[in-house]
Amino acid sequence: MNKQRRDNDIIQLAHGGGGRLMHDLIQDVFESAFRQEDFSARHDAALLRDINGNVVMSTDSFVVNPLFFPGGDIGSLAVNGTVNDLAMQAARPLYMSTGFIIEEGCPLAFVRRVARSMRIAADRAGIAIVTGDTKVVERGHGDGIYINTAGIGVIEHEDTLGPERIEPGDAIILSGDIGRHGIAVLATREELALESELESDCAPLAADVLALVEQGIKLHCLRDLTRGGLGTALVELSEDSQKTFVVEEDAIPVSNAVASACEVLGFDPLYVANEGRFAAFLPADQASEAVAFLANRNPELQPVIIGEVQDDGKPIVVARSPLGTERVIDMLSGDQLPRIC
Amino acid sequence: MNKQRRDNDIIQLAHGGGGRLMHDLIQDVFESAFRQEDFSARHDAALLRDINGNVVMSTDSFVVNPLFFPGGDIGSLAVNGTVNDLAMQAARPLYMSTGFIIEEGCPLAFVRRVARSMRIAADRAGIAIVTGDTKVVERGHGDGIYINTAGIGVIEHEDTLGPERIEPGDAIILSGDIGRHGIAVLATREELALESELESDCAPLAADVLALVEQGIKLHCLRDLTRGGLGTALVELSEDSQKTFVVEEDAIPVSNAVASACEVLGFDPLYVANEGRFAAFLPADQASEAVAFLANRNPELQPVIIGEVQDDGKPIVVARSPLGTERVIDMLSGDQLPRIC
Repeated sequence: MNKQRRDNDIIQLAHGGGGRLMHDLIQDVFESAFRQEDFSARHDAALLRDINGNVVMSTDSFVVNPLFFPGGDIGSLAVNGTVNDLAMQAARPLYMSTGFIIEEGCPLAFVRRVARSMRIAADRAGIAIVTGDTKVVERGHGDGIYINTAGIGVIEHEDTLGPERIEPGDAIILSGDIGRHGIAVLATREELALESELESDCAPLAADVLALVEQGIKLHCLRDLTRGGLGTALVELSEDSQKTFVVEEDAIPVSNAVASACEVLGFDPLYVANEGRFAAFLPADQASEAVAFLANRNPELQPVIIGEVQDDGKPIVVARSPLGTERVIDMLSGDQLPRIC
Repeated sequence: MNKQRRDNDIIQLAHGGGGRLMHDLIQDVFESAFRQEDFSARHDAALLRDINGNVVMSTDSFVVNPLFFPGGDIGSLAVNGTVNDLAMQAARPLYMSTGFIIEEGCPLAFVRRVARSMRIAADRAGIAIVTGDTKVVERGHGDGIYINTAGIGVIEHEDTLGPERIEPGDAIILSGDIGRHGIAVLATREELALESELESDCAPLAADVLALVEQGIKLHCLRDLTRGGLGTALVELSEDSQKTFVVEEDAIPVSNAVASACEVLGFDPLYVANEGRFAAFLPADQASEAVAFLANRNPELQPVIIGEVQDDGKPIVVARSPLGTERVIDMLSGDQLPRIC
């Protein structure tokens, strides 16, 4: 095996062919990285322990370039992305599958590093990686590594969260400053020299959400801010709930590093991707308690109340400036350029 | 919306950007193709109905070229592949997620056709597509469409199947003739003129397996024959069970079309991919009943007993010719060339 490792230090098509090389790859890289008591590498399906409660399922694919960036990599992203989709239903993440699509020629060391990163992220988020799949595509038909994860979680409380639960008078809170992930990835890819060090905000959100529920906060709706950023998330929820949201533009925390990078690049931080932030809609009389509770858990994140829900039947999002002027936030019709992810 | 459909008849990067175009793509293509009562398109996670029993989870990615081939397409493949992984645990398929990675420039019509095909395959297999994700990668970093599916099923009986259950004396049965999928895909891609029409065997296997269980057949282990074919599946199970398998080479059904294509191309049909066939290990005294039962359900498939399990502690697979000569079946160390999938 040692000899083979040296000889085959890049991914070949045959690593996905179902034969000996794939068999060795799975054993050598994935079985050794993932938690053995959880991971069912060779039987194509994993038997899970008992699940009691309402089950939630989610999936996400990850195609980030570069694979490694300050604050994370495609592996931690793939774990946290799916953990966070489950968390947005206030579900406890339980089990995860992972599908790798690897490009021929990708260094085996990258695959190994990403698998280890997934294991670390999964342990941190309290989710078990239980089953996986590997495909290899020809050179020029991939981008190093693409990962899909699908996750299962369980809702252990009575509430169902969703945009239909958003009510007039609800406060809108934001769990932390925005735009770090998108700018960190872009800066790495384009080799931009930022004024100050910037890391992706990539992080699991489930523990914070479950703690809020435990604390008795009556959450109506949660949304993690990924592609499209805070702006797109608000517009989608406004449309789905058919309510008007008014946010105080000045209240939205943006770090100096993100703000100055956005200024140089011509980006609006409202639309820059995040991977560890969420917006929550909840009764106004619990908003301050929720924010204080989150700030106590994560003092560095600056959770804040950013606005409120009105009910005049128009599904629009209005941003109010400190001077009292207003602008309507819409979805981007295309991409911000250059593309971030 | 109609105007937009005409103007945007190919996939653009912005279709994956999280903004308006992606929003419209999801609504226009996926929400309209998938069963509305099942599919949770916009809330990133689906709430499932109650699950009672032992839960099984599985995932698979699909990178087939071409996307469409006789007997199926990447959509039916993606549904059946995951359904079959669940079926191999004798689990009833319940819920499925789907992640699309689409290459910039892919015709929107392809995406629509594949989504519809998934819906048809899911209805046939009795599985609900409950949640999904779409990413777009730059031209030259994909191959039209890649799909990942992950599935959840439930085991409603007491038996756990697996290679550790394989016993000396067990019969090995094969659910039908082998090699159709690999040759059908290759013939389409390479525009080979085969002597006779050949379709992929792509099909869901869960109903057959559940019917066998219902019939009282005590299955010990099941394995669907995908990448690597029957040969690789047998070698893996022989290693995992640490048992010797002896198969009668002459008993393995291969259609004339597959046999002659393999002869011309220099392939061994034992290693050619299938997408609707499985091998089963079960007590020898139930093997004839099981085969007759399967033949009655699928008269065209030619299910057969192909061999038996011996116990001399050596994990090898021996193929016996009609003349009594024997050869050891091993995993391929690389690919059969040209590659099939």
